[in-house]
Amino acid sequence: MTTGPAFLPTDQKVLLRRDIIVGDLRDLLGTEGIVSDARELVPFETDGFIAVRRLPLAVALPRTTAEVAAVLKYCSRYDIPVVPRGAGTSLSGGAIPQEDAVVIALTRMNRILDIDFPNRCATVQAGVTNLAISDAVSADGFFYAPDPSSQLACTIGGNIGMNSGGAHCLKYGVTTNNLLGVTLVLFDGSVIQLGGKHLDAPGLDLLGVVCGSEGQLGIVTEATVRLIARPEGARPVLFGFETAEGAAACVSDIIGTGIIPVAIEFMDKPAIEICEAFAHAGYPMDAGALLIVEVEGSETEMDQMLKGIIDIARRHGVQTVKESQSAMEAAAIWKGRKSAFGATGRIADYICMDGTVPLSELVAVLQGTYDIVARHGLRVANVFHAGDGNMHPLILYNINDPDESARAEEAGNDILRLCVDHGGCLTGEHGVGIEKRDLMRHQYSEVDLAQQMRLRAAFDPKWIMNPSKVFPLEGRNA
Amino acid sequence: MTTGPAFLPTDQKVLLRRDIIVGDLRDLLGTEGIVSDARELVPFETDGFIAVRRLPLAVALPRTTAEVAAVLKYCSRYDIPVVPRGAGTSLSGGAIPQEDAVVIALTRMNRILDIDFPNRCATVQAGVTNLAISDAVSADGFFYAPDPSSQLACTIGGNIGMNSGGAHCLKYGVTTNNLLGVTLVLFDGSVIQLGGKHLDAPGLDLLGVVCGSEGQLGIVTEATVRLIARPEGARPVLFGFETAEGAAACVSDIIGTGIIPVAIEFMDKPAIEICEAFAHAGYPMDAGALLIVEVEGSETEMDQMLKGIIDIARRHGVQTVKESQSAMEAAAIWKGRKSAFGATGRIADYICMDGTVPLSELVAVLQGTYDIVARHGLRVANVFHAGDGNMHPLILYNINDPDESARAEEAGNDILRLCVDHGGCLTGEHGVGIEKRDLMRHQYSEVDLAQQMRLRAAFDPKWIMNPSKVFPLEGRNA
Repeated sequence: MTTGPAFLPTDQKVLLRRDIIVGDLRDLLGTEGIVSDARELVPFETDGFIAVRRLPLAVALPRTTAEVAAVLKYCSRYDIPVVPRGAGTSLSGGAIPQEDAVVIALTRMNRILDIDFPNRCATVQAGVTNLAISDAVSADGFFYAPDPSSQLACTIGGNIGMNSGGAHCLKYGVTTNNLLGVTLVLFDGSVIQLGGKHLDAPGLDLLGVVCGSEGQLGIVTEATVRLIARPEGARPVLFGFETAEGAAACVSDIIGTGIIPVAIEFMDKPAIEICEAFAHAGYPMDAGALLIVEVEGSETEMDQMLKGIIDIARRHGVQTVKESQSAMEAAAIWKGRKSAFGATGRIADYICMDGTVPLSELVAVLQGTYDIVARHGLRVANVFHAGDGNMHPLILYNINDPDESARAEEAGNDILRLCVDHGGCLTGEHGVGIEKRDLMRHQYSEVDLAQQMRLRAAFDPKWIMNPSKVFPLEGRNA
Repeated sequence: MTTGPAFLPTDQKVLLRRDIIVGDLRDLLGTEGIVSDARELVPFETDGFIAVRRLPLAVALPRTTAEVAAVLKYCSRYDIPVVPRGAGTSLSGGAIPQEDAVVIALTRMNRILDIDFPNRCATVQAGVTNLAISDAVSADGFFYAPDPSSQLACTIGGNIGMNSGGAHCLKYGVTTNNLLGVTLVLFDGSVIQLGGKHLDAPGLDLLGVVCGSEGQLGIVTEATVRLIARPEGARPVLFGFETAEGAAACVSDIIGTGIIPVAIEFMDKPAIEICEAFAHAGYPMDAGALLIVEVEGSETEMDQMLKGIIDIARRHGVQTVKESQSAMEAAAIWKGRKSAFGATGRIADYICMDGTVPLSELVAVLQGTYDIVARHGLRVANVFHAGDGNMHPLILYNINDPDESARAEEAGNDILRLCVDHGGCLTGEHGVGIEKRDLMRHQYSEVDLAQQMRLRAAFDPKWIMNPSKVFPLEGRNA
């Protein structure tokens, strides 16, 4: 593998490289297509995982698939690491450069290319925001289903990289269930089309493996996504329980009965207090835990489904049942939930875990979470997608206290190990990124990891695509 | 790569190899675990794609994952090709040995291992039939959703290999949407676990890429699948249209409006005549095409959804609307559809195509299909999953007439090329197998195919797993 003529094997290598690389990239994308000034690079040094920071070598801002291909062809030729970036909302550090890397930011690729109602899909560039897709089709009664909390900002390219979810994925599935096709630029600049407007595809399901691959198999520049018809109506209901265990057992029972609401969101007492103080959503302050269960359909359908759900909740000793009587009440119920992360951020620093467990393990893992956090002398608030078993403990700490920071990180790792030990996994929708890289060995055997790395190398033999993420740094077998 | 001491580089190599191999395999699995007598091998020489036949070297009948691993470790060591087989119902020749291969038949691995209602899933061995899963949970009100026409016989392992679908996949998705985890034995006998009872998994989605990989990435020995609660009620409705074009346009409009029935099945005039003569389902004999649209839910929900569907059908000039008034009428409507292949087989030999197109192209592709078949001087009956755009033209011919056989094959290839040219693909649920191997170049560029083959080689570097399938034989880059 040659490093090319542009590089000197001396101490000044990095400085020289940066100048030459920036100049070459400018030739490819034009002056406005490259960010290289140190001050202007600062916004790209981190993402939603703010504990880690590093300036990129440069940032490329391509406008077309051809420009992305040109940058990748160039970087691949000279073994320059590349980190793709959408809106930089990753909670696991997926968009943070960990080496002298060129960040390829897709923010200028923000056009909706095609809306096709007869085939119930839309094709967009990768830098289009999640919410912009729904906005573009809402007048016609459609929406794009996955709804991460960051949906106002996060891009569809990032959603595909992390296989993002959201509160309403219980019924509609996560990104991979709503993705029909992509245009993918491979490490060497070659371009492939995966999927399309049709069901399935012959041969190996490259589309499926690209979704959730955290920018390591190539860069998605365009995506075709499924559109869903907006239901006639939707109604969230608040259920207040005395204990978190009661609420968790109720969730497991609802799903076990076969009822699939659109969303089942869970908040424990600390989360209720934080969110109510911020959003004044009318949450029951005497509850030890609450569930927000949303059903949708016609009035009759919603009545019928809610009847079944309320019966189950009563069997688990529900204290409060509050059906929203108006669109405004419904919005208030959701506002409390959707502002949970922001509201928490006002009172403390926090790290947000993303472990997922089988529903039958919810009670045990929740109790284990409280024990772990108490053992580390910290506080925790739990607010999560309970119907999916996708837990989000928010561990509260003071980022300026190195000892507390270390304990928070340890507690987080202990919680994720607990999820795996209960038959669950390290991440439901936030990805592995930097955050959970070293925990992968707890989830996977050496044989499992080696197979994943062989697959990765079949796409990126030079290991230049977002190279420091997902896999433990030691023992790689590229 | 050594071929091992057992092999002599002489003309007798194959004969010697067979004796030694059979003996070695018998040591691994016991006498009743190996079929090697030429007469007993005959049932394994073909599958649902009866145009191709070849006797395997031997058939292994393992009972456990460990036995599968032992056979693969042995075959891998000596570079012996391996062909996995479920019930042998593949319509694309996926289970037919194309070389001196050991067939690994999973038929003795037919135990249901775990039924877990709180987590709404079941874990079964790969040789369990599709219908046996639903049977095992139906008393509790659940079922397994994908329903290939062969569901009485076909096994879940084969369903995973082909990513099988069925009439009811319009609402519930195909196999990949209902698969939570598998135990996979790799080419060298190592065993990996993919997925589990939880949502998503960290790292690359190996589960997704294994589903539909036609036995080339490893052998699935156990699977965890999603269970679905049986709806309160289900009601199929027959719609008779004057022309096939009218029926196709109606389908596209139903889906474009955002309504998702459980199933939308299509039959054209030849299919109606064949099925009615066989099943006496009460189909309208004056119709040029009919749709079977099934909705499910409570009576109110079904009434409401049907109202919307009937309105759309009227706009497309529907002639007959026949709602089933009883369980018996519903069963008769489905019996006609489900017996379509058998009924066709009584009057002629046929090959069943499996192209998939965007819904907006249904009318054009249907018309093109009629033109192609007429040009080859043959007849065609169309009966297919219209809501998914998954077309199944049955080309009728006489298998004993070599000229007709050749024309039928040509017509089939022309139809699949037509699907691809209309933005569709070669297969919706039957797989590529032997049948569509050489058409893959029409669907994919060299870059696309090379990437798929690199991924394949990352699982099976010796290329011993079901080696002659899926990819064109020429130009492979293992």
